[in-house]
Amino acid sequence: MKESFGADLYIPQLSVDCVIFGFHDAQLKVLLLQPMGFDYWILPGGLVGQEEGVDEAALRVLKERTGLSDIYLEQFRVFGRSDRPTIETMKHFFRSNHLNEERFGWMLRRYVSVGYYALVDFSKVRPSADLFSERFAWYDVRKLPATGFDHSEIASGALGALQLMLDYKLVGFNLLGETFTMMELQSLYETVLDRPFSRNNFQRKMLNLGILERVEKLYTGAANKAPYLYKFKSGEHTGPVPGLS
Amino acid sequence: MKESFGADLYIPQLSVDCVIFGFHDAQLKVLLLQPMGFDYWILPGGLVGQEEGVDEAALRVLKERTGLSDIYLEQFRVFGRSDRPTIETMKHFFRSNHLNEERFGWMLRRYVSVGYYALVDFSKVRPSADLFSERFAWYDVRKLPATGFDHSEIASGALGALQLMLDYKLVGFNLLGETFTMMELQSLYETVLDRPFSRNNFQRKMLNLGILERVEKLYTGAANKAPYLYKFKSGEHTGPVPGLS
Repeated sequence: MKESFGADLYIPQLSVDCVIFGFHDAQLKVLLLQPMGFDYWILPGGLVGQEEGVDEAALRVLKERTGLSDIYLEQFRVFGRSDRPTIETMKHFFRSNHLNEERFGWMLRRYVSVGYYALVDFSKVRPSADLFSERFAWYDVRKLPATGFDHSEIASGALGALQLMLDYKLVGFNLLGETFTMMELQSLYETVLDRPFSRNNFQRKMLNLGILERVEKLYTGAANKAPYLYKFKSGEHTGPVPGLS
Repeated sequence: MKESFGADLYIPQLSVDCVIFGFHDAQLKVLLLQPMGFDYWILPGGLVGQEEGVDEAALRVLKERTGLSDIYLEQFRVFGRSDRPTIETMKHFFRSNHLNEERFGWMLRRYVSVGYYALVDFSKVRPSADLFSERFAWYDVRKLPATGFDHSEIASGALGALQLMLDYKLVGFNLLGETFTMMELQSLYETVLDRPFSRNNFQRKMLNLGILERVEKLYTGAANKAPYLYKFKSGEHTGPVPGLS
């Protein structure tokens, strides 16, 4: 039996963690996993194979946990403080899962983690737990339960990065379905940025960007009071938005 | 003699690389080092100590190379492709410096590098080469010489990140001295963003931000045709700029 099972397969002391955002019920939610025998929750994450790119490792984790492969993923920050509580959480994990500390002792080290956030259409996600995870759940990013490692810090870092990018690139649209009302779009912006917008002002600004296409209503013969639906002009949903300059 | 000299001191297969930008002669310049016996240039960088935070490692590298400690530093991206040419460049480095490959063999691995950019006041930097570097030089970021590793890719990634942030936060001012003319500020923006601005439009937008303070001219008794000098209102040079919303 090999003493350090798996040690040669991965880059030592390096991990990826994914903050998977979904928008639902006017809440910005994050997908969390709960390992077996644990009182706390963690972000989906994993190690980086020796033959695998770091971005590829994040995509693999996402695919394994959400069943989705063609989604918006952004690397946003490295969490590299020397006092990250990785060893404590890993020991807890080993004990809960009756793993042999000697055999997997190479994992009981300080880890540097590369943080990613993903934006998914909530309705399309079919989350699946992994071998060691008891269950998964979506939580409001502003009301997370107790988390392992420093994962609440990683989640709030991802929220900050998303807020910053929301104006610059139109990444937020990845959180909506293919078509959406102006009210839904406004609700998304208000939720992510945590501030209200005036309805007229918001609509005018969005339409002025020239990136939305109004979906034709079907003629039903009756007076139609339903709101207009919009969708993206194809290929324009991740381009930069003109800013200050 | 220890076989793997230094191996226990650092996080394996992890490095930091710093793109140090300075603005001079209407060029955005990058500080490069040339290792002894090399035909190519590299960015200042180094390993991360086991007891050291990743950001701290970048600050240490910066201080060692520029003599500056209180400067603007931003982590912008991890370079983690599995085919980064780190082993080839390291072997070349070992041969040029007559280092024993067996003794330092632990360094001949794939490396994942955390990229940082720093914005410095060109006039204040006193660069210093390290033990293995023959010399240093400032190069126009758009006209780099041949670089080792994937450092030209890291430098252009840093330029992209700087361009993105220039509108969002007023980070660009870190590239200027304490006082500057409106023309110097415009030249900086034009150089970084690689596009011209109309003079009146640029001045109006900058003044409207309400962050600049005009420095009083000394009364010389003569008609004073010199341009106004500006400086930052204190504490406001890294705050966010109102964007689309």
